[in-house]
Amino acid sequence: MLFERLLQQIDFIKEIDKVKYIQRKTRLFNSDRNENDAEHSWHLAMMALVLAEHANEPIDVLKVIKMVLIHDIVEIDAGDTFIYDTEKDHSNSDEERLAANRIFGLLPEEQANEFIAVWEEFEAGETNEAKFARTMDRLEPLLQNTSNKGGTWNEFGVDYKKVYEKKKIIKEGSDTIWTYAEKLINDSVAKGILKK
Amino acid sequence: MLFERLLQQIDFIKEIDKVKYIQRKTRLFNSDRNENDAEHSWHLAMMALVLAEHANEPIDVLKVIKMVLIHDIVEIDAGDTFIYDTEKDHSNSDEERLAANRIFGLLPEEQANEFIAVWEEFEAGETNEAKFARTMDRLEPLLQNTSNKGGTWNEFGVDYKKVYEKKKIIKEGSDTIWTYAEKLINDSVAKGILKK
Repeated sequence: MLFERLLQQIDFIKEIDKVKYIQRKTRLFNSDRNENDAEHSWHLAMMALVLAEHANEPIDVLKVIKMVLIHDIVEIDAGDTFIYDTEKDHSNSDEERLAANRIFGLLPEEQANEFIAVWEEFEAGETNEAKFARTMDRLEPLLQNTSNKGGTWNEFGVDYKKVYEKKKIIKEGSDTIWTYAEKLINDSVAKGILKK
Repeated sequence: MLFERLLQQIDFIKEIDKVKYIQRKTRLFNSDRNENDAEHSWHLAMMALVLAEHANEPIDVLKVIKMVLIHDIVEIDAGDTFIYDTEKDHSNSDEERLAANRIFGLLPEEQANEFIAVWEEFEAGETNEAKFARTMDRLEPLLQNTSNKGGTWNEFGVDYKKVYEKKKIIKEGSDTIWTYAEKLINDSVAKGILKK
């Protein structure tokens, strides 16, 4: 019985290797090499460990780390949706729900349910942990784009207003980080790497 | 003061992007593409989340996850050492200690000290958390090599005895996972993808 559980878990561990092939639009720091979802998720987990003290409200750091580690696993089936895509909504789609059920469903049932619940909590963005996890998810590409002379902002013609609109939820997770992020956005306009 | 801490933390977050460029000898599942240290660390963290129930002793899962997320950061300066390298010891070298001091030293002092202590605890391999983290670190390439018809075992002429010697510490973290891993090693010999 224990061994049967382990075999299911190993199947899941093999399946999620595919996260390493999902290319994001964003590029590594000071680089033209695209980041993949596994690298992105690792970086967000490291950021959550390092920046947890700046959360507006008390957070369960392990829960935040679970969220950022698993948040893009659904993209194995659903693919990466660019945050500034105007045709496709970035939020929790039917396709992503199906993906969550299939992929987390490889695990023993109660474990699958736990992972799906954590993923849904992240997507809903309402709890302290989800807010802080989303702060991490918005901050990383902001740092990357400013290191890459505007990166995807210039590549896809995204202006200040759109960036500000997407990034302002950083404030929900951390006022301190938002103060820093807002300054980065304004500095980017001043430097001419983000169009007003 | 709070903002000064944040700026130090951001410097660290930018520096560790380099982990994504460190290529391991091991390849992704059913693939000839090398894995990098960020992908590897993400995968170990996911494995720790999923497999924690099989630990021999009670473990602090957050501690284990910290260990696996940061264990290869020193390779930014020290480079990846192949586990079956006969000339260079895989254990905690002076070079790696210097790297830990430099890279974690970018963080505010008490945070730097905490990360260095977690890294040293992992390297020493004596606590329940370190043993389980090392179980994850030994298991992933075993799964990868068996998916790749022997992978690095055949590529670098590593035989059953050497593999068994390196992998048997899996048992220190989890008897259940070792029962599975030992079977995988023996099956690999039977399949002709690992030389006796």
